[in-house]
Amino acid sequence: MLDLDRQRTSSMAPSLKPSVIVIGGGEDKVQDRKILRAFVEAAGGATARIAIVPSASREPEIIGNIYRDIFRSLGAEAIDVWDIRERDRRTLSEAEVVVDGVTGVFMTGGDQLRLCSMIGDTPLFHTVRERVWQGQLVLAGTSAGAAAMGHNMIAGGGSSEAPHKDIVSMSVGLGILPEVVVDQHFHNRNRMARLMTAIAAHPDRLGVGVDEDTAAIFEDARLLRVLGRGTVTVVDPGEVSYSNQFWVNSTTPLTIHNLRVHILSEGSAYHLLKRIPISPGV
Amino acid sequence: MLDLDRQRTSSMAPSLKPSVIVIGGGEDKVQDRKILRAFVEAAGGATARIAIVPSASREPEIIGNIYRDIFRSLGAEAIDVWDIRERDRRTLSEAEVVVDGVTGVFMTGGDQLRLCSMIGDTPLFHTVRERVWQGQLVLAGTSAGAAAMGHNMIAGGGSSEAPHKDIVSMSVGLGILPEVVVDQHFHNRNRMARLMTAIAAHPDRLGVGVDEDTAAIFEDARLLRVLGRGTVTVVDPGEVSYSNQFWVNSTTPLTIHNLRVHILSEGSAYHLLKRIPISPGV
Repeated sequence: MLDLDRQRTSSMAPSLKPSVIVIGGGEDKVQDRKILRAFVEAAGGATARIAIVPSASREPEIIGNIYRDIFRSLGAEAIDVWDIRERDRRTLSEAEVVVDGVTGVFMTGGDQLRLCSMIGDTPLFHTVRERVWQGQLVLAGTSAGAAAMGHNMIAGGGSSEAPHKDIVSMSVGLGILPEVVVDQHFHNRNRMARLMTAIAAHPDRLGVGVDEDTAAIFEDARLLRVLGRGTVTVVDPGEVSYSNQFWVNSTTPLTIHNLRVHILSEGSAYHLLKRIPISPGV
Repeated sequence: MLDLDRQRTSSMAPSLKPSVIVIGGGEDKVQDRKILRAFVEAAGGATARIAIVPSASREPEIIGNIYRDIFRSLGAEAIDVWDIRERDRRTLSEAEVVVDGVTGVFMTGGDQLRLCSMIGDTPLFHTVRERVWQGQLVLAGTSAGAAAMGHNMIAGGGSSEAPHKDIVSMSVGLGILPEVVVDQHFHNRNRMARLMTAIAAHPDRLGVGVDEDTAAIFEDARLLRVLGRGTVTVVDPGEVSYSNQFWVNSTTPLTIHNLRVHILSEGSAYHLLKRIPISPGV
């Protein structure tokens, strides 16, 4: 009976490739709109039913409308704005009603802590996450909406100094990509040191830094593809043999041995399970 | 006979540990002066005979005098300023007279291209280099004076954007550490991307990025030790399996797979031949 139910639900849902689109902020909104177009296409193109979550922003109405206009002009069938301005209190069954039929959710920029305080660990977002994992819904996030994708989330930090614990502040994200620590506006804001420092403190994770107007597309649990104008940097601590970050104070300079780093651009991919980059053309 | 001559030369020369001290700029000049003190000590302490090369600077007299006062107060026996303002034209025998008895040479900051245009590939600097390699002379350079240490030299570059060829401009350095590409003011000026891009184009080299008030001390051909307040970042391309930098145009974003990166701080070391970091306390 349950199986039949699930089958029915699946057959009613659009047949999407499970995917999470992690955008480094500053994506092209007026010219080719390559990344936003890819999101609409992944969500079903002319049959895409999109929900915009502008909650990271302090101007949710303005930013919600900007993306509404873009997704409309890119041919989505329906666009809704989930203008959540305080912590979402919907029950699971209420949440399911809201999410039913939605094929793409887009989280805007702003402040990732604000975003997570409103939707993190709510029935609404549990429902979204379930549907993403089942391939019924494509989730995209840009800037703060990208930062929130991991379980361990970079909430803030600095640059332009020798790396040490205080160069990055961590919090808890939405856990869509639990194994990944995302950073965004990556090379544009010189965030290599803070991502490496974050990874030194979370050596069981994988660091993924996404440049502006660039997306890391997680096609499924196995493959990360790069789309856009910049690069995606993967910081893999799988072979780290020494790190001082568990016992030094917050201003002691970082020591970490044997990080593996890949810088990827469009055409490149990365195998998330094997932890190996895949050359363009392969 | 030759052997005897060599032995005589060696016995006349001070018995120094061969060393090159690569300082990331902004070294403490007024408090502990840990790094400058280490240079004077390495050059013989109370018997140190130091020559300052201020040629990278456009204010060679001022900067020469600053370091003269510091090295004097740190107890060096003799301090000379080689105020070379145009390309040095000394013959080899003239150069040997100048260098004889000098136990430490210190190259100041400024512009590394200016420095190399005046002393690069001159008999004077060949003599200095020979004596460094023979362990008769300690060579230190800060900022531009550090950048010039390699054969492939970073002459300039940018940050705050997705890495691509144009983010770094390369030239030819003094070749003291021919296998190394040095960058300085490293994390302070967010130079990780430009060093990785430089290394992508020179995968037979080793990238060494030195933070301000920090030194990478090359004790011999085998060991790099870290001294000071920041970090030394080693970018090792020894396992790079793919890079697009040999055939793309200068604005195409970088792709490079399998860089190995170590961030080291005081107490850490790096084995240059084995290409492995050595943990503090080992």
